[in-house]
Amino acid sequence: MDKFRLAQINKYNVIRCLIRESPINRAIIAKRTELSIPTVMSIVNTLCEKGFIRSIGKGKSSGGKPPEMLEIVADRLFYIGVDIGRTTIRIVANDAMSRQIACLREPTGKTIPERAFVERLSRLIIKFTSSIHAEKSRIMGVGVAMPGLIENGTGKVLFSPDFEWVNVPLKVWLEKLLPFYLLVENANRVLALNESVSAKMDEPLYTTFAVNLGYGIGGALVIGEDLYKGASGSSGEIGHFIINREGPLCKCGNRGCLESLSSGAAIALQAQEAVRKGIPTKIAGLAGKESAIDAACVFRAANLGDKTALKIIGRAAENIGIGLSMAINLLDPDRLILCGGLMKNGPLFFEKIKTSIGKHTMWQAGREVVISIGIKGEYSTANGACRVLADKLWENRNLPI
Amino acid sequence: MDKFRLAQINKYNVIRCLIRESPINRAIIAKRTELSIPTVMSIVNTLCEKGFIRSIGKGKSSGGKPPEMLEIVADRLFYIGVDIGRTTIRIVANDAMSRQIACLREPTGKTIPERAFVERLSRLIIKFTSSIHAEKSRIMGVGVAMPGLIENGTGKVLFSPDFEWVNVPLKVWLEKLLPFYLLVENANRVLALNESVSAKMDEPLYTTFAVNLGYGIGGALVIGEDLYKGASGSSGEIGHFIINREGPLCKCGNRGCLESLSSGAAIALQAQEAVRKGIPTKIAGLAGKESAIDAACVFRAANLGDKTALKIIGRAAENIGIGLSMAINLLDPDRLILCGGLMKNGPLFFEKIKTSIGKHTMWQAGREVVISIGIKGEYSTANGACRVLADKLWENRNLPI
Repeated sequence: MDKFRLAQINKYNVIRCLIRESPINRAIIAKRTELSIPTVMSIVNTLCEKGFIRSIGKGKSSGGKPPEMLEIVADRLFYIGVDIGRTTIRIVANDAMSRQIACLREPTGKTIPERAFVERLSRLIIKFTSSIHAEKSRIMGVGVAMPGLIENGTGKVLFSPDFEWVNVPLKVWLEKLLPFYLLVENANRVLALNESVSAKMDEPLYTTFAVNLGYGIGGALVIGEDLYKGASGSSGEIGHFIINREGPLCKCGNRGCLESLSSGAAIALQAQEAVRKGIPTKIAGLAGKESAIDAACVFRAANLGDKTALKIIGRAAENIGIGLSMAINLLDPDRLILCGGLMKNGPLFFEKIKTSIGKHTMWQAGREVVISIGIKGEYSTANGACRVLADKLWENRNLPI
Repeated sequence: MDKFRLAQINKYNVIRCLIRESPINRAIIAKRTELSIPTVMSIVNTLCEKGFIRSIGKGKSSGGKPPEMLEIVADRLFYIGVDIGRTTIRIVANDAMSRQIACLREPTGKTIPERAFVERLSRLIIKFTSSIHAEKSRIMGVGVAMPGLIENGTGKVLFSPDFEWVNVPLKVWLEKLLPFYLLVENANRVLALNESVSAKMDEPLYTTFAVNLGYGIGGALVIGEDLYKGASGSSGEIGHFIINREGPLCKCGNRGCLESLSSGAAIALQAQEAVRKGIPTKIAGLAGKESAIDAACVFRAANLGDKTALKIIGRAAENIGIGLSMAINLLDPDRLILCGGLMKNGPLFFEKIKTSIGKHTMWQAGREVVISIGIKGEYSTANGACRVLADKLWENRNLPI
């Protein structure tokens, strides 16, 4: 490793430490980053001179003289994160401390023609960035989270079944429409990164598999603090695990993929079919009319004890558990985090999924895995996009630091 | 990163470079390792003083004065690798250049009672190490590759379906019986590491998923040069992907696992059943008697055009392709390497597996993946055990370097 690369890594580690634990003193930074005190002092001095961090006076003494406490200058840099979900677009601005300072949501609406959609999206991003009262030069860029297969490096959407997009050069189009540095990444990956980040620098580095159970199903692996990307940009596609080869045709071309059996869209379709067939259920009454039946209605009916609804979500949970048990057999993660809209419908679904995982995972495999529900809220994907953007800017030495 | 750790990493990179490209000069080492010439010179001097590398005189000039060429002193260190397969035990000795200098194979025989098996294994290892005429102090340790779930760190066999072992403290037992440093790792992981290592230091770092298709089925992921281990030691268990929930009961307790459908053991069982049912086939004639039917007989019959055999191996290839397509959807590797006994039966099986992968992988996913057959021979797992051992000794600073 050359000295310049090492210096960059050391600087980045100091900043990550400050982001997580500000205010903090030099001795704790040295402990967390495993750097010597003189190295930390030299890095801190440079960051102070450039206005990226500042002293906020003396902290509590732990015996000797009270240490000087440092913090990140929060409004020195801002990152914009965009989550293009199939039903809702969410945009956030994060400050240099990775704190969300503004957000916006709007229905996604029609995604075709692609060009018209991207133009509408760019106007929305411009409206949002104008509203946050940050100097334009302080906005470091825009990170965009998109469902589907995104080509590594180019930010081209190779295939997004939910959006019915094929080979859409999303990053190139947005670059022409926006005056910002642009990054496009798979939505499940940025969500996984955001959900996996722990609050403290001194926690051990975990391996996390996070899965997004919503309109579609996808996942991503985070090893320590690094996103596992794969060779071409298509890793994490657990939604296209084949669970039942005689199952329904999936948008990807195969039969019986997990997504075609157990996604929010699949649950809604199964309920609509049950109503159409005249099977007795409370689902229709809750939805008003057949076309208004969505996964949320099915969960509401299930929570009221409706047998048809319980059967549909029971089957969905069983299948999701099978898919996740295969991910556990293959990845043996420390943590499995279940995120997305389907997880917001009460504890019943989570319990059923855990039961199925227990039943289908190979005996003794994944014994360390802690299974939990994502807790970082509806803007988690958008915040993850800011995080991936910041990492990328850092890696490319594209920050004024 | 502290200076001591950095110095270790730099030294290790220099040695890896020497192992792969000896004889080599200082300038090339600097280029490959991204270190400065003075740093390389200082490391090289230390390694020469300790007798780990030596000068072999001047090389060809590329304009200026001819550079001094360096090489590893091959007989300075030896590593022992043991591959405990279900049918055969293989033992190798590798020199400091990672070259195999001796090998031994013996039928595995009875694996129960566990204690008696481990005692027999230890006698075999002692017999082998005595035969290689290396000073005992130059033997750095013994790396053992074992099929099944191996607990990270302790080297305990949590569960080995093939051996019918549960909670066998293999490493602890061997440590009491052998005068060497011991390491126990999952066989599929050490095989994957060995198959993934490229000959040159300047190749890009690939992500490799290697799968062992033999008596059982298992795989492992190698990211760059690092084995992906997982939290508890059970990663890579693609053999327990559930392919058909109505399938046969697997040794792991589930139904329709890939291993129960398509391993060497499963192929043999299916052929035995066909013969028992009186289905017309050449398999019985090739084997002599029903109990002697193994997977190799089925492949021989298939290569002669036998319809029953073709059907059995066609179904096995189809299922293996489904399992691998799920691994591709999840991992998006640069390389997929198929190893193990089943791959030694001609090109037909490989072609059928590739067809099934093409049919079942999500559209556009894994577009960069290069699929190949492992080429490192029957001692690849044993050599991989040497490699994992060397890495571990290095990591723990347990080498006299």
